[in-house]
Amino acid sequence: MRSFIIIGHKAATEPFSLNDLPGSAGRMDILCRCVNAALFLSHDLRRDVRVYLILKGDPDPPKIIRFDGADVRYLSPDERSAASLIRKALGKKVQDFWTESMPGVSIRRGDLGNLLGELGSKVTCLREDGVDIRSEGFKGISMEPLFVLGDHLGLTEDEEKTIKGYEHEIVSVGPVSLHADHCIVLLHNEMDRTAHGQGNIFRTQHIMRAR
Amino acid sequence: MRSFIIIGHKAATEPFSLNDLPGSAGRMDILCRCVNAALFLSHDLRRDVRVYLILKGDPDPPKIIRFDGADVRYLSPDERSAASLIRKALGKKVQDFWTESMPGVSIRRGDLGNLLGELGSKVTCLREDGVDIRSEGFKGISMEPLFVLGDHLGLTEDEEKTIKGYEHEIVSVGPVSLHADHCIVLLHNEMDRTAHGQGNIFRTQHIMRAR
Repeated sequence: MRSFIIIGHKAATEPFSLNDLPGSAGRMDILCRCVNAALFLSHDLRRDVRVYLILKGDPDPPKIIRFDGADVRYLSPDERSAASLIRKALGKKVQDFWTESMPGVSIRRGDLGNLLGELGSKVTCLREDGVDIRSEGFKGISMEPLFVLGDHLGLTEDEEKTIKGYEHEIVSVGPVSLHADHCIVLLHNEMDRTAHGQGNIFRTQHIMRAR
Repeated sequence: MRSFIIIGHKAATEPFSLNDLPGSAGRMDILCRCVNAALFLSHDLRRDVRVYLILKGDPDPPKIIRFDGADVRYLSPDERSAASLIRKALGKKVQDFWTESMPGVSIRRGDLGNLLGELGSKVTCLREDGVDIRSEGFKGISMEPLFVLGDHLGLTEDEEKTIKGYEHEIVSVGPVSLHADHCIVLLHNEMDRTAHGQGNIFRTQHIMRAR
């Protein structure tokens, strides 16, 4: 299972207009593109992926929406499609446990701390000065990774502090600063290559020599 | 300059509704995501990129819309923003030469053959069975690359035939089949790494040894 948490610091926590995702919905467009990048293959869905969106905007934060690639239906690649499923979830009564609003889409009350506590995994964060995922020194992404990514505002000090309470590592996907959804594409590619034996050739060689 | 041509086989060739990009606008959502992937950095635009969208849908094909990263304004990362600029361009009278509809956005009559003739560059296509851009045998992406990508329908036989009239190569970005916009993210990352000296470590080593 590959898991991605994306934090939407301004993302609306009540049903919103599908015609203004960047504005009144609080940069919901970013979260929708992350859902696309995390779940879509060319003509298929990535069934082994879960995406968690933490919505921290007005009027009723925080809420978490989960997309489960194994079960999700009625999801198309366009932003509006993901937004429509998020909006539907926000119409549900929110409780301290998961409630399914549509197949593969669930919602609960909670913030990053609640979610990391529930998942109990090592956390991988992205930052420009992190360890390059293609560098010789990097040990490779774990088989069951849990990534935490910020929206256009990155991660707050409080969120970084929360993450420090868990085993964690900080990685970089390249030399220039990118949108969260582009980072997800690059992380998937690295994991796909590892899974198919096309990972960093140098690293593979290095490991073979070490044996 | 990095150039990307994306072919929208069903993409509308007259102004369309922004509320139904996948449907009545003929999978215009795909082209909009490609504009995003090609042009956006985290808090900046890629100024050295041009994106060409070839629109082949009803009612008046073919038309080409160009986004020029050096000049484009009023473009946000969301699909609707790119779609709005495309729609505005489609409202212009279309001629056999470029007409600017908004800063950095232009339109002309033409198909893939016209465009490749105008650009006169070596073409790089993507296909699952192409040469892996990270493989030892691959010589690296050219400094002034021109990529041609298809939408959900790939490239037609006619389009492949047109490309064969030019110097071309066929590459692959990884082991699984991906959407065009995800491929663009991976191509940019590879070129960014090369530009910043973080390319395929093995290839670099190999070149050093060969000297």
